[in-house]
Amino acid sequence: MRALVLSKDAPPRVDDARPEPALSPGEAIVKTRVAGVCDTDLQLARGYMGFAGVPGHEVVGEVVACADRAWIGKRVVTDINAGCGACSDCVEGDGHHCSRRTVLGILARDGALAERFAMPVRALVEVPEGLEDDKAVFAEPYAAALHVLDDLAPAGRDDRIVVLGDGKLGLLVALALHAAGRPTTLVGRHEEKLAIARSAGLVTRLEAEADALRGAAAVVEATGNPAGLALALDLVRPRGTVILKTTVSGPITADLARVVVDEIHLVGSRCGDVRRAVRGLADGAVDPRPLVQARYPLGDAALALEHAGRKGALKVLVDA
Amino acid sequence: MRALVLSKDAPPRVDDARPEPALSPGEAIVKTRVAGVCDTDLQLARGYMGFAGVPGHEVVGEVVACADRAWIGKRVVTDINAGCGACSDCVEGDGHHCSRRTVLGILARDGALAERFAMPVRALVEVPEGLEDDKAVFAEPYAAALHVLDDLAPAGRDDRIVVLGDGKLGLLVALALHAAGRPTTLVGRHEEKLAIARSAGLVTRLEAEADALRGAAAVVEATGNPAGLALALDLVRPRGTVILKTTVSGPITADLARVVVDEIHLVGSRCGDVRRAVRGLADGAVDPRPLVQARYPLGDAALALEHAGRKGALKVLVDA
Repeated sequence: MRALVLSKDAPPRVDDARPEPALSPGEAIVKTRVAGVCDTDLQLARGYMGFAGVPGHEVVGEVVACADRAWIGKRVVTDINAGCGACSDCVEGDGHHCSRRTVLGILARDGALAERFAMPVRALVEVPEGLEDDKAVFAEPYAAALHVLDDLAPAGRDDRIVVLGDGKLGLLVALALHAAGRPTTLVGRHEEKLAIARSAGLVTRLEAEADALRGAAAVVEATGNPAGLALALDLVRPRGTVILKTTVSGPITADLARVVVDEIHLVGSRCGDVRRAVRGLADGAVDPRPLVQARYPLGDAALALEHAGRKGALKVLVDA
Repeated sequence: MRALVLSKDAPPRVDDARPEPALSPGEAIVKTRVAGVCDTDLQLARGYMGFAGVPGHEVVGEVVACADRAWIGKRVVTDINAGCGACSDCVEGDGHHCSRRTVLGILARDGALAERFAMPVRALVEVPEGLEDDKAVFAEPYAAALHVLDDLAPAGRDDRIVVLGDGKLGLLVALALHAAGRPTTLVGRHEEKLAIARSAGLVTRLEAEADALRGAAAVVEATGNPAGLALALDLVRPRGTVILKTTVSGPITADLARVVVDEIHLVGSRCGDVRRAVRGLADGAVDPRPLVQARYPLGDAALALEHAGRKGALKVLVDA
């Protein structure tokens, strides 16, 4: 089959003879309909996690093979974490921290920038009939954005939340908070991206004017930039929360004495509940389609990756 | 009066003609009985916070002047934060984060390494009759140690807590957790200090063997060392908590991608409830006196500071 392939020794390339994914017990083979390119894919292409294989973890597809035939033909999105299914994190939780997990297109499992991929059935979420592919493909990043809501306490429902970063994730986080009724200000460097948020009713501010936001009960750091944490610490109030969404490879330097003296909570936040995201997208709580900036056929997936890596690029989709 | 004085241009020195503290409305003058030297005092002497004046914030003393005469003659310890008394943090909370606060011997208020000092009456806590000075002088650092209990969730009551650092604060934190019935392991580099914890019934481990503690639900970083955070992040489990007690001046570098991917909570923790600490010390829940390593008269307070700064020193007391 056709797939985008990352390897250590060569640039990303489309392989037209990639072996088909195997159908393992408890899993399904999903035919990709539309996939999104995430900043993590760009980092993987630069060597993050030492990943080699097929990237891609934002996807809407159709089940084409599965032992449980009820799944066949269903349009699905997927939780990207495939836990062992047996440990306490898998049994009592969501398996997102299972130590033996594989992660679609990120860790020990080929991803969705391919004609077909495999995932455990328990990770799949059916897409409701009225939800378009171009919205459903945002289920995974929108789930990650909604996950911020789980860590906002002790910020109150009326406290203003500051989101740093007007890239794809920052925009989605701001849209998610706004849809949840939380007063939210998105801070960024790009007027044209902030305008997308304003169209959805959000308050925005250029980073150069962020000082006026000091004393925030909660700040979401989604800049994708090692310097974002310092700004977040400048803006958060004592005993406030900074939610970290940026995964930058390598060490970050911060004034942690400030964290201790002002008793700040720094909370790492990664994946969220894809089922909740599908509900929000289906309800029309947010429309992520203004974030789509370009689309490419799977045969041009290497170009899609290059496009997504351009400075200021928003979401690039790949049609399989 | 006699006082230890820090200034920008000279080494710490005892001044025998330091002006008496003024008695302001709502405040009391307290005659120092015994004061402790804290690592923060050592940092102040090196220029931290740009402090110039009398250091000292661990103290038991006797009220010698106060508009409310009921206080006079009482033996007291004190919360070190003197808030404005009017802002929401002071009215609804404990004033520990009042933006206009002064802090005894740390921020815009002369401290207790002197014959007398002033503090607001509302910060004072009476010492019960049976509680010896040499225990009561630990009220402030023991309150800071107990404050760790406020941030342990979501760690369960039976989850083992790892405390990093066998210095004064690490030992007190470990004693506080143990007294609260939390399974605790103290990790340090000094057999003789770990032995103090073991005498109190604690489990201890040398840092070189800390690897066996990986997967901890909560880790308290009290090493006083910029490298402590990296070890804490190595040991804490996904979705676990790292409580930061170390205030090191200057930036600290850490792998924050780990914090995001494993959704770790980093919580800054500073001062605690001195009233709770006095209760714990009076109940005999802990006996901090084995931490006392030396004592000096106030006239030799500069020597006390020097002693406290020696590698591996534990608590140094000053008798006024």
